Amino acid sequence: MPTLLLTRKDVDGLLDMKATIEVVEQAFRDWALGRASMPVKAYLILERGDFRAMPAALPGAVGVKWVNVHPQNPSRGLPTVMATMIYNDPQTGYPLAIMDATDITAYRTGAAAAIASKYLARKDSVTLGIVGAGRQAQTQLLAHAALFDFRLVKVYDIVAEAVQRFVQSFPRYRIQASSLEDTVASDIVCTVTPARAPIVKKEWVRPGTHINAIGADAEGKEELEPDVLKGARVVVDDLRQASLAGEINVPVSQGLFRVDEVYASLGDIVIGRKPGRHDAKAVTIFDSTGLAIEDVAVARLVYEQAKQRGDYLEVDLVGS
Amino acid sequence: MPTLLLTRKDVDGLLDMKATIEVVEQAFRDWALGRASMPVKAYLILERGDFRAMPAALPGAVGVKWVNVHPQNPSRGLPTVMATMIYNDPQTGYPLAIMDATDITAYRTGAAAAIASKYLARKDSVTLGIVGAGRQAQTQLLAHAALFDFRLVKVYDIVAEAVQRFVQSFPRYRIQASSLEDTVASDIVCTVTPARAPIVKKEWVRPGTHINAIGADAEGKEELEPDVLKGARVVVDDLRQASLAGEINVPVSQGLFRVDEVYASLGDIVIGRKPGRHDAKAVTIFDSTGLAIEDVAVARLVYEQAKQRGDYLEVDLVGS
Repeated sequence: MPTLLLTRKDVDGLLDMKATIEVVEQAFRDWALGRASMPVKAYLILERGDFRAMPAALPGAVGVKWVNVHPQNPSRGLPTVMATMIYNDPQTGYPLAIMDATDITAYRTGAAAAIASKYLARKDSVTLGIVGAGRQAQTQLLAHAALFDFRLVKVYDIVAEAVQRFVQSFPRYRIQASSLEDTVASDIVCTVTPARAPIVKKEWVRPGTHINAIGADAEGKEELEPDVLKGARVVVDDLRQASLAGEINVPVSQGLFRVDEVYASLGDIVIGRKPGRHDAKAVTIFDSTGLAIEDVAVARLVYEQAKQRGDYLEVDLVGS
Repeated sequence: MPTLLLTRKDVDGLLDMKATIEVVEQAFRDWALGRASMPVKAYLILERGDFRAMPAALPGAVGVKWVNVHPQNPSRGLPTVMATMIYNDPQTGYPLAIMDATDITAYRTGAAAAIASKYLARKDSVTLGIVGAGRQAQTQLLAHAALFDFRLVKVYDIVAEAVQRFVQSFPRYRIQASSLEDTVASDIVCTVTPARAPIVKKEWVRPGTHINAIGADAEGKEELEPDVLKGARVVVDDLRQASLAGEINVPVSQGLFRVDEVYASLGDIVIGRKPGRHDAKAVTIFDSTGLAIEDVAVARLVYEQAKQRGDYLEVDLVGS
């Protein structure tokens, strides 16, 4: 029995943002309806970086993503974050595919934010602000562009060259290098930085803004002043993960925000258990920590595409 | 940068029991000395089986094993338990190898039990009793035979043909198909069954016996009458895992055995923090649940052997 082996290059050629958004939205639906399983991530902290094991099952699909964060990697010519996915048949446990999941991670993160924006941002949103111009910024743009028609995209990064590289990578879009304050003055704002102290000030956030807070994905990380959360409609991808490692983790641990002030999970909104945006003036925030169900959903998509196209490396992994 | 891909056949050709015992013993030493990391296993329970994600780090090595248990697999011609290991460079997180870990699991389990027997069984042990004649029984025999010189090996299984197959697989050893009671009347006893109710009776266990209780590896499983634990010197591989999923889990949950009655962890004994066997008449028990550090230790061994020999499939997994 063959196991498919998909390299990063293979996966890159198979990923499609529109389809990614569809399957990630379905994963949130399945999760909210109790049709998915997702134990807590297992963290492994080492001297130079950390690893997370992220297992999950969706109807007809199961797998684990193993992902590292090694901040010193770029100086060695390696990505900070790399990920590998083992994708299995839930009926037998057989490993159907091993695939690089570095870009799956970026795609599904972009997709989850765009889905949140679809339900929470104003329908007439015409400006997108992206704070941080790294790898995740690219998929935020791609995913939002699949669902919205922006007049202007504003980008800020602490490193000016990062913004220049970003602008040059997307000649199709009208992108403007902007100040942090100007970038936050957008209809939809995505924060994708590794900040460990708030960088987005309450006074910059206009009424009616929707913010996707993506960067905070571990204890001690935060991007928004706690005051931004107060009075906003805060939606999380998963309450347990967000409380421990998401944007709300620091304000919660300092007593500046309570877990019961969270309005809903994204899955609850997708299935209509809770309404999304209710008034044009409200500030809404999506606290994204990244879920294993998102990864498994995209892995299934990639696997099915690869099987259809054929012509990928197959190995007899378990044959004895 | 290449990632090695090692199939089950490749790994089989690279595994050596003596070397496995050495590296697993070193892993217990590192764990007891605080030089290893091992978060709790993440369990994923599905309709037809379950999965466990088992991450761990040892000095210079890190990885995750993803292993399933699907009891109905044999009827489809597939192993009940299959495992895949992702093995990484702790300095950068780079995936150095993907390897089938089905046999690594069996080898390291045998090795851990043999190490326990080395410290806990009587030095003059000459009979080995194996209860259950499946895959794990084979590596129990191989591992013990690497450290002991047995006059007789007794084997029992509820399925008589399983015993016959086992005897025929090892023409080098003097193996006797025996009753359950006779098998338990051995110097060293290994229980490797999927029992969910005690099968080993207290009255059968002779003074001076060492028992490796291997089968119980999930909540609700047990192989020994709780009375066997009482008065015995009980050693665990990991106290937290054993309390939740090892041989002691059912007696502990029923109040028949207390966690503080556990004498020591195997690592404590290996590093000499606690003495092993103290008197010839004592009954000793090793409660083995299977640790991720054991898997990572063997994965490193296999990886290093493969690099030395060369000639295995390499893929550019993360190259973009």
